[in-house]
Amino acid sequence: MLPEIAFFDTIAEAAATQTLPRFRMAVTVDNKHVGGFDPVTEADREAEKAIRQVITERYPDHGILGEEQDDIGLDRDYVWVIDPIDGTRAFISGLPVWGTLVGLYHKGRAVMGMMDQPFTGERFIGSPDGAFVWRNGKSTRMQTRKGVPLSQATMMTTSPAIFPADLEPAYKRVEDAVQLARYGCDCYAYAMVAAGHIDLVVESGLKAYDVGGLISLVEQAGGVMTTWSGDRPEHGGSIVASGSPELHQAALELLNRAG
Amino acid sequence: MLPEIAFFDTIAEAAATQTLPRFRMAVTVDNKHVGGFDPVTEADREAEKAIRQVITERYPDHGILGEEQDDIGLDRDYVWVIDPIDGTRAFISGLPVWGTLVGLYHKGRAVMGMMDQPFTGERFIGSPDGAFVWRNGKSTRMQTRKGVPLSQATMMTTSPAIFPADLEPAYKRVEDAVQLARYGCDCYAYAMVAAGHIDLVVESGLKAYDVGGLISLVEQAGGVMTTWSGDRPEHGGSIVASGSPELHQAALELLNRAG
Repeated sequence: MLPEIAFFDTIAEAAATQTLPRFRMAVTVDNKHVGGFDPVTEADREAEKAIRQVITERYPDHGILGEEQDDIGLDRDYVWVIDPIDGTRAFISGLPVWGTLVGLYHKGRAVMGMMDQPFTGERFIGSPDGAFVWRNGKSTRMQTRKGVPLSQATMMTTSPAIFPADLEPAYKRVEDAVQLARYGCDCYAYAMVAAGHIDLVVESGLKAYDVGGLISLVEQAGGVMTTWSGDRPEHGGSIVASGSPELHQAALELLNRAG
Repeated sequence: MLPEIAFFDTIAEAAATQTLPRFRMAVTVDNKHVGGFDPVTEADREAEKAIRQVITERYPDHGILGEEQDDIGLDRDYVWVIDPIDGTRAFISGLPVWGTLVGLYHKGRAVMGMMDQPFTGERFIGSPDGAFVWRNGKSTRMQTRKGVPLSQATMMTTSPAIFPADLEPAYKRVEDAVQLARYGCDCYAYAMVAAGHIDLVVESGLKAYDVGGLISLVEQAGGVMTTWSGDRPEHGGSIVASGSPELHQAALELLNRAG
């Protein structure tokens, strides 16, 4: 049986207790690496510890795949996939576009997921009941934007520099085809696809924990998320997320076109 | 005599009344251009109208330079410089890194300035009394980060694509020299220099209204902001903002190095 959505609130609050006080620490310390003190590494590690504790107390039989600590029981039916701070570069730069990602996989398939941004107070959750964003105690159902052709689409990617030389031309074909390309948004970009503000995310080199919390968000809001070759995205790799099946198909065609 | 800081609050609130309800309109309309309806253009225009009204009621003798409407009295001692929504691409993509910029120039020199981000609730203000960020009713004095050499600096720019071919190699020398380069933050990047979270912003092709509200923020927090040739930044153009004079000098040297 899947957890109720409120369980994700408990997870998010436990993580925020560790991340938020360390966000923008540079205001008070001149050099964040003085004496080996590094707020983002600490926040990452402590938030994952807090998340794992909440999960193992409630679901001792579930597996856990996290960024910071050892994996536990990846062969179990239910596996939690955790990235305590996705977008560490945004975090250290003071930008509120990082997020805490937590996904739940059942037999290898994402069934629930959350991106929490505690500074802006936004919590994006995907579940079998749909995708929702919570803010200021109000919940809004999310739906992806439909009917947008590639030529009118807004695309985001973390940076054009993330693509290795063999993938760069394929990425560039998509960037050249869309109306607006924007860089530097990490997990926030997938939440914006789910919420219908942008149409496309194209990235590569992702780990399972980079995508685990985001798949249900995108899918339950009506979008599509796969690898560049059209396979399930649960293991990460080269990833495309789209607002509609038609747009997804158009992006995949460009990505896989010979030379 | 300069206005009190509270006058900027009045301006910010008047602008937010027009911008905030139109931010993320895509949640409720499928295609934001249906029937010529365009939330960002409307928000831009209406916010500038609201800002001008607040200013001209209080200071009928001051000049106004804005993005949307005709300039008024640019030869007067005091001129207000307005960009109702800096970062319209962020605005239409749902990202909370756009801002309302309002600067006050005295005899051509920036003396006060504000960047307001009404979604996150952050208001950054530079004045002769210093630079401050307000949030949740709390004011914090901002100070730039000092003692960071170029090799350890975090740099931001809106996009590497903003540089014309003749400036791109100079920009690239700086990007290659810093530790971390990040794209896509518009005015938010300058606020992060002022707040000491990042060290450097390098951009080109800016208008006076793109920088007018930001100069006092950076300078009053202890930073330096000039054109690439080291001149005053009030007219825009190719701009560098740095956390310290030493870092600024190092960036200017790289930007102006022959070929």
